[in-house]
Amino acid sequence: MNGAESLITTLVNSDIEVCFANPGTSEMHFVAALDEVKGMRCVLCLFEGVLSGAADGYARMARKPASTLLHLGPGLGNALANLHNAKKGHVPVVNIVGDHATYHLEHDAPLTADIEGIANAVSHWVHTSKSSEDIAKDGAEAVFQAGEGLISTLILPADVSWGENPAGAAAAIRIPTPRQVPQSRIDAAVSRLQSGKNCKIIAGGREIDQRRGLMLGQLAKATGASLCTDVFPTRLARGAGTVVIDRMPYLAEAAIDYLKDVDHLILIGAAPPVSFFAYPNLPSMMARQDCEQFVLASPGDDIDEALENLLRRFGALDIEPEVHPLALPELPSGGLDVSTAAQALAVLIPENAIIVDEAATSGMPLFPITAASRPHDWLNLTGGSIGFGLPASVGAAIACPDRKVICLEGDGSAMYTIQSLWTMAREDLDIVVIIYNNCKYSILELEFSRTGARGGVPGPKAASMLDIGSPKMDFVSIAQGMGVAATRATTAEEFITQLNKAIQDPGPHLIDALVPPLF
Amino acid sequence: MNGAESLITTLVNSDIEVCFANPGTSEMHFVAALDEVKGMRCVLCLFEGVLSGAADGYARMARKPASTLLHLGPGLGNALANLHNAKKGHVPVVNIVGDHATYHLEHDAPLTADIEGIANAVSHWVHTSKSSEDIAKDGAEAVFQAGEGLISTLILPADVSWGENPAGAAAAIRIPTPRQVPQSRIDAAVSRLQSGKNCKIIAGGREIDQRRGLMLGQLAKATGASLCTDVFPTRLARGAGTVVIDRMPYLAEAAIDYLKDVDHLILIGAAPPVSFFAYPNLPSMMARQDCEQFVLASPGDDIDEALENLLRRFGALDIEPEVHPLALPELPSGGLDVSTAAQALAVLIPENAIIVDEAATSGMPLFPITAASRPHDWLNLTGGSIGFGLPASVGAAIACPDRKVICLEGDGSAMYTIQSLWTMAREDLDIVVIIYNNCKYSILELEFSRTGARGGVPGPKAASMLDIGSPKMDFVSIAQGMGVAATRATTAEEFITQLNKAIQDPGPHLIDALVPPLF
Repeated sequence: MNGAESLITTLVNSDIEVCFANPGTSEMHFVAALDEVKGMRCVLCLFEGVLSGAADGYARMARKPASTLLHLGPGLGNALANLHNAKKGHVPVVNIVGDHATYHLEHDAPLTADIEGIANAVSHWVHTSKSSEDIAKDGAEAVFQAGEGLISTLILPADVSWGENPAGAAAAIRIPTPRQVPQSRIDAAVSRLQSGKNCKIIAGGREIDQRRGLMLGQLAKATGASLCTDVFPTRLARGAGTVVIDRMPYLAEAAIDYLKDVDHLILIGAAPPVSFFAYPNLPSMMARQDCEQFVLASPGDDIDEALENLLRRFGALDIEPEVHPLALPELPSGGLDVSTAAQALAVLIPENAIIVDEAATSGMPLFPITAASRPHDWLNLTGGSIGFGLPASVGAAIACPDRKVICLEGDGSAMYTIQSLWTMAREDLDIVVIIYNNCKYSILELEFSRTGARGGVPGPKAASMLDIGSPKMDFVSIAQGMGVAATRATTAEEFITQLNKAIQDPGPHLIDALVPPLF
Repeated sequence: MNGAESLITTLVNSDIEVCFANPGTSEMHFVAALDEVKGMRCVLCLFEGVLSGAADGYARMARKPASTLLHLGPGLGNALANLHNAKKGHVPVVNIVGDHATYHLEHDAPLTADIEGIANAVSHWVHTSKSSEDIAKDGAEAVFQAGEGLISTLILPADVSWGENPAGAAAAIRIPTPRQVPQSRIDAAVSRLQSGKNCKIIAGGREIDQRRGLMLGQLAKATGASLCTDVFPTRLARGAGTVVIDRMPYLAEAAIDYLKDVDHLILIGAAPPVSFFAYPNLPSMMARQDCEQFVLASPGDDIDEALENLLRRFGALDIEPEVHPLALPELPSGGLDVSTAAQALAVLIPENAIIVDEAATSGMPLFPITAASRPHDWLNLTGGSIGFGLPASVGAAIACPDRKVICLEGDGSAMYTIQSLWTMAREDLDIVVIIYNNCKYSILELEFSRTGARGGVPGPKAASMLDIGSPKMDFVSIAQGMGVAATRATTAEEFITQLNKAIQDPGPHLIDALVPPLF
């Protein structure tokens, strides 16, 4: 077999089943090999930012990485923003980046670029395969390296791809089991939780599933500590039957207030809380200077085992945590705005749905009101790099074909990776896209005032940089142009009817929800 | 004034008049400063790949750089592919990349990234400004560094932007005049051109304008050397009254044949010809191994002066070069395909138009047939990174508001930066976009067979990676969704009628031209 065939076979042996791809000439032998090797589903995306976001969404839901297939340095560059999000969310991705043949690089052909340099900025592990005989073991290593929730990037020169590899494919390298949290750290957590001081547990990491959430709730109840998640948890089980858990406020002003009485922060997969951005008159760190921030577990640690140990120490393994009953609001009527849209969603989210949230300001009323909806998973934008929601929905839908994906998008954020709609149609993915079309970069209007620039009031030129309503975007037309059925909602009733239909019908649907800006 | 105001004033002092922007929170003081400083036009783009391509197209036509405004590492990542193209085309761009406040970086907030690492991969000069008092001189240096056709990237931390700069703005640093080609190299060229051997002149660099083209033609005529341009010249004056000049073939097989009798290559702003990609049974270099490749001038050299010196040596300053008369084909009728579309365009290109070519295979018949059309400039994809055409058209139209821009796009390439259409509508730019909608990555079908993968015949999975016709894209619908008037052409007559109308009416128009694939 040739190098490409041995690589794909190795990836399949390593339990990589999906490759999100936008190939070019240097990847043609990889593409050819897809017909020679069984077991790899290759999903075409029209732009690389779609495929990297899809790889992120897939891995969050499949709990294992997908691979990507990218065309040289510029292809990797296009993928970079969503790889950044995956990296910040502790989500594993295995990138395969095609390059010129090894001997061709010195001639500086037009597409020659510093691929390793670009890759290093968004990868934990970067390697250029040197020969067809190495590529199988390099591929297994790439999967192994990604295993702990990291980004690995394997650069595949064209001649390595097309050359013969008599050694054939490699077996998977065993993915390491999560690191055990040492007893000394458990002891240290216990002593803090028993100190009588004000303790708050912040949970983060790559997932808070239902079981982990319930254990966190047990620990909070047993110790009297308060409990919250990161501002933007990577994946969070929510709704009826899940633990009652706060979320760290996004706004620094609110986060500082939220933490002002806390003496000990117990960080479980979470980092010390920091302001998303710096502001002239606000500190970077959200906790009081004299608040101790204790890291019980990192994202790659065995968090469930650590929680079990802690619960055992408190004799709390059988304690009943506080959980949400099923509690749905009334269906709204009248005008459509972000609040009535949120009410409608809270009622209509189907059991086991996956919510992908990149709605920015328009999503703000949605998170609290859906806490007691039917059980669902919630995926957040973890790295702040806009253009995550539509692609991550593609990946989530491919990972979980039996679950309905609901993608909440701002109009501004939708336009970074709008090409995702085409892949949704091509793969007939079961996704409802809701665009909150408010004709603004509304989050930036808010941020403009928070930074205090020009006294918080934009002049006409600045205001025009925050305004995306001229021309107004017609997402129905855009979606239909890429083969996705779409409707426009201007009242709560229309929104409910359209959402109901989109949830009941399989395949992709888009709702262009005309809403006023939240602020 | 604050740092942002002093930076913008410095940019304006340095003759930077346009900023293509997609700002975020960390850039809000820069955005605010646009209302405090006169002279900077700020053009909002919905995606960073649009704005970097626009900066490229602008600089090619304005013959001076624009600035960009980018949001941290991910924003720069999104801009990378089109910066790569600008870099390969010797086109100057001044990037301003916002970053977190200097003191905020250590806390690793979600958007923290290795901006310098990303920037280094696509920039000749990278600098992070350290304080508000430095930013003005750093800005002047950034423009100076870009001056020779290079990419400079200045990283602007938020606190550098909002802090006071009592020193105020800086004056421009004088852009260096082009380097003189030393007499010894002129002598060496003369001796080769007089050697009686078979000589070919290849011209490249950042522009071949009418005058330079004519001088090249004089030199060829006087010396008997043959003459061609790079495969993809950055900017080329064409049509009636311009020199008759070949273009190096794209296909390596053809280029090798084209150069097989050449003993001396005289390279004027061009690099030694190299295959765009490597192929298993083709060499990387296109010239014979024993062909001498002599570099007379680099892109940053004073090419016109060198040509004048050479012409003087050959007593050829007044010789009549071979130029194109105006010669238009017949208007076609009947079916619409890439040939009839090319015929129609050859007739209808208006005087002084700017053609931006990213039509890939569909553009192949177009270049030869338009050689004697009305005078126009032609911009090519210089770095091979797809997604250049629509954005570069935005930039060209802003640089030259009195000229009609005609953008030739493949359906596949259009989708990388389709958001460009919105900026065309917002700024009411005088652009005709022609999408060759053939439902294929047709160039990749060609390349698949050239690489010899799987005997040159894709299997069903590989074929599906080259097929973008399921679903078919409706570019009329997509364009209208972003506020651009659009029509569909299925016959030569429809195409001619629509093209005529789009050329006569000001503002952006898109024609969705349904054509069969060339192959």
